[in-house]
Amino acid sequence: MEKRTLHTVLSPRLLDLYSLSDGVVVVIDVFRATSTIATALSNGARAVYPVAGVEQCKQLGQKLGAITAGERNGQVIEGLLHGNSPAEYPRSFIAGKDLVLTTTNGTKLLKMALDQGAAEVITGSFVNLGSVCQYLVSSNKNVILACSGWKDRFNLEDTMFAGAVVAQIERHFHMNCDSSLMAKQQYQLHEADMKTFIRQTSHWHRLKAFGLEKDLEFCVTPGGAEVLPLYNPQNGTLNAVALG
Amino acid sequence: MEKRTLHTVLSPRLLDLYSLSDGVVVVIDVFRATSTIATALSNGARAVYPVAGVEQCKQLGQKLGAITAGERNGQVIEGLLHGNSPAEYPRSFIAGKDLVLTTTNGTKLLKMALDQGAAEVITGSFVNLGSVCQYLVSSNKNVILACSGWKDRFNLEDTMFAGAVVAQIERHFHMNCDSSLMAKQQYQLHEADMKTFIRQTSHWHRLKAFGLEKDLEFCVTPGGAEVLPLYNPQNGTLNAVALG
Repeated sequence: MEKRTLHTVLSPRLLDLYSLSDGVVVVIDVFRATSTIATALSNGARAVYPVAGVEQCKQLGQKLGAITAGERNGQVIEGLLHGNSPAEYPRSFIAGKDLVLTTTNGTKLLKMALDQGAAEVITGSFVNLGSVCQYLVSSNKNVILACSGWKDRFNLEDTMFAGAVVAQIERHFHMNCDSSLMAKQQYQLHEADMKTFIRQTSHWHRLKAFGLEKDLEFCVTPGGAEVLPLYNPQNGTLNAVALG
Repeated sequence: MEKRTLHTVLSPRLLDLYSLSDGVVVVIDVFRATSTIATALSNGARAVYPVAGVEQCKQLGQKLGAITAGERNGQVIEGLLHGNSPAEYPRSFIAGKDLVLTTTNGTKLLKMALDQGAAEVITGSFVNLGSVCQYLVSSNKNVILACSGWKDRFNLEDTMFAGAVVAQIERHFHMNCDSSLMAKQQYQLHEADMKTFIRQTSHWHRLKAFGLEKDLEFCVTPGGAEVLPLYNPQNGTLNAVALG
């Protein structure tokens, strides 16, 4: 069998340059949507409903009797109940519940991947790095690592997570992709000092003003919430999938 | 005076996310448009006319009695006289002449920068790294390092040139830009082994099939054609500008 391909997409604006129809798209929004999704699901949430808009979040939450969550500029959105911090979703709170989540970048990209015909969509962050890699290797599909960035701009934390995945799985793929090569090298350059390095990123400067340092450190620590969130297009939900 | 800003744009698709109206946009297309532009001008070409399309290239060339040049997939375009290789423009050939040039990525990006209201446009590649840095530091404008990429995808050679500029000039600027930080680190990682490293890039694989290795090595060697190509919107030309 010909080797599968592996690409990294550095901004949602570049997603349509890649063929998604025979691929798994990994939606990456390290600060903080995909870290929070993994955390909620690994702590027993029944399902996460990612939605792009605030009104849709409120309506769906009411209909389902679910927890609604979303922030803009580090504040819980008026009319929603919770924020985007993984720390808000311990097992004691979230187990058995549904979560409807809207975020600035990650949920938007997830919808784009679906609209552009992705065969499969999962979400990834450092907290579930191992599960993501295990799933991608065992799948029979091409891989597209899709970074959410910040309002379509490149960001380092999403790129470095893509690089962490590339470093673990590239030997199983045919890789002719400058973005993936760069991402891997950025990750390897900072792997040992991630918590120091992220203090140089623009996202850190944006969020530290809201006192989120602990949050951000959790988001770049591998393994804190090992689970594989797979999107179910019938239900519009992300659910934890058992790995073989 | 408040410090000027410095940004790196990794793909033409992302250019409109940045404010260009008070900035110098550096158009970067290392393989090979902006390397060839610098080479022709440093060897005495009177002016370079960058044009987006083949027909426009032919018509303008005829009108001006200029040399026309352009390639697609490593071959001179039918109806044009020359290719995109810097090696085709030694002083003995190009001095005192006009060159009308169309390329896949670089000339397109230059037009985009103008359409989006850039205050000033210059072109840069490793061959004129020193001149570009000297000009940017002495200018009183913000700086946007704009990578042409390949058909809107990210590429490493343009990014590393942006990184080389960042490394030299960032102390004069306020930099809160993950792209610039990444570009600088990629450059510093490979500065000492550039000729080896570029063999890993996707563009190398694309062009080496056409026997262009020597060309590509020239394009990543600093200082081979020190000149500052500044776009003149009245004439539609890039001209060599004397540096103070």
